Amino acid sequence: MKNDSDLLNELINALTILPGVGIKSAQRMAFNILEKNRDKAKNLSDLLRLATEQIRNCNQCRNLTEQSICNICSDEKRDSNMLCIVENPSDVLAIENSGTFKGKYFVLMGRLSPIDGLGPDELGIPKLIEQITNSNIKEIIVATSPTVEGDATSFYIRDQIKREVKVTRIAYGVPMGGELEYVDNTTLGRAIQGRREIKE
Amino acid sequence: MKNDSDLLNELINALTILPGVGIKSAQRMAFNILEKNRDKAKNLSDLLRLATEQIRNCNQCRNLTEQSICNICSDEKRDSNMLCIVENPSDVLAIENSGTFKGKYFVLMGRLSPIDGLGPDELGIPKLIEQITNSNIKEIIVATSPTVEGDATSFYIRDQIKREVKVTRIAYGVPMGGELEYVDNTTLGRAIQGRREIKE
Repeated sequence: MKNDSDLLNELINALTILPGVGIKSAQRMAFNILEKNRDKAKNLSDLLRLATEQIRNCNQCRNLTEQSICNICSDEKRDSNMLCIVENPSDVLAIENSGTFKGKYFVLMGRLSPIDGLGPDELGIPKLIEQITNSNIKEIIVATSPTVEGDATSFYIRDQIKREVKVTRIAYGVPMGGELEYVDNTTLGRAIQGRREIKE
Repeated sequence: MKNDSDLLNELINALTILPGVGIKSAQRMAFNILEKNRDKAKNLSDLLRLATEQIRNCNQCRNLTEQSICNICSDEKRDSNMLCIVENPSDVLAIENSGTFKGKYFVLMGRLSPIDGLGPDELGIPKLIEQITNSNIKEIIVATSPTVEGDATSFYIRDQIKREVKVTRIAYGVPMGGELEYVDNTTLGRAIQGRREIKE
């Protein structure tokens, strides 16, 4: 059964486009906005419009930005000898937060998945290969996700690079603080395959 | 650490006004919108603006509506001898969905809570009493929540009504399908207090 107000019903439906929001949460959100947060909701409305209109992909790395070239790509202090390839903008954020990488990025905006219609062109791989060919990049870190598609994507990219360059993949293994007995089999398998010598 | 795009950071912050949405979920929502749902997000933006501008409280029952009098209040088929007093618009929806009430409503938009600055005036109780005095309402069902404040609100309303009218409170007890052993003590106490004779 529906609310009395059509506009309210439309708003509730519209809120369900947000990931993780079903009809019940959307209802709660709509009532909360209308009862307590009208000004902030107006602000949210403006920002949603502005963001959908102005935020696009960086011409160089495909990350989300309002400029034609994002701040990371135009930052001359960053090491342009290192390129990290990730699937999503949220991965860039996660790696930046770890504070362990000072090179540049390339954001695929997905991973190879023919079933979803995501081929090399959709991921901008030809552009990526062109960038690599015409640059002095010395190391490429492929940080795609540890899934079948993520693996396939990393192998495909490795295959396409025709010039001499070091291509690495981030390590997959037991997470820090994790107890071995609670780690799943595949992860443990990867951790054993990826074992490294303890240097004196 | 923040994203590269200021607009994106602002959007993420703005999304956290939604109840149940923290910074991580807001991030996920923002990325999802910008990667896959731009058109729908524009629609959501429009509806948020329209709703905050146009949806107000019904002049009669204080429920949310775009009109000056809501559809329930203006529906002549509904029984104007019965009035159900609830705390929130979502309670109206819940009771309508149960299909057991065909009278009219009054929405308090909260419950008496001096600590939050919610007194009788904020809940429109003087207006409610005036409506009751000048009407031919025969039964008033108080469906405030089974909390200390909800109880206080129901007693206060009962006290304010100066004319002869039946005032009832909805039953609080063991929910249908509930197992006694899992029901909390207070609910079970209420269920025992509210026991009814089994008629032959």
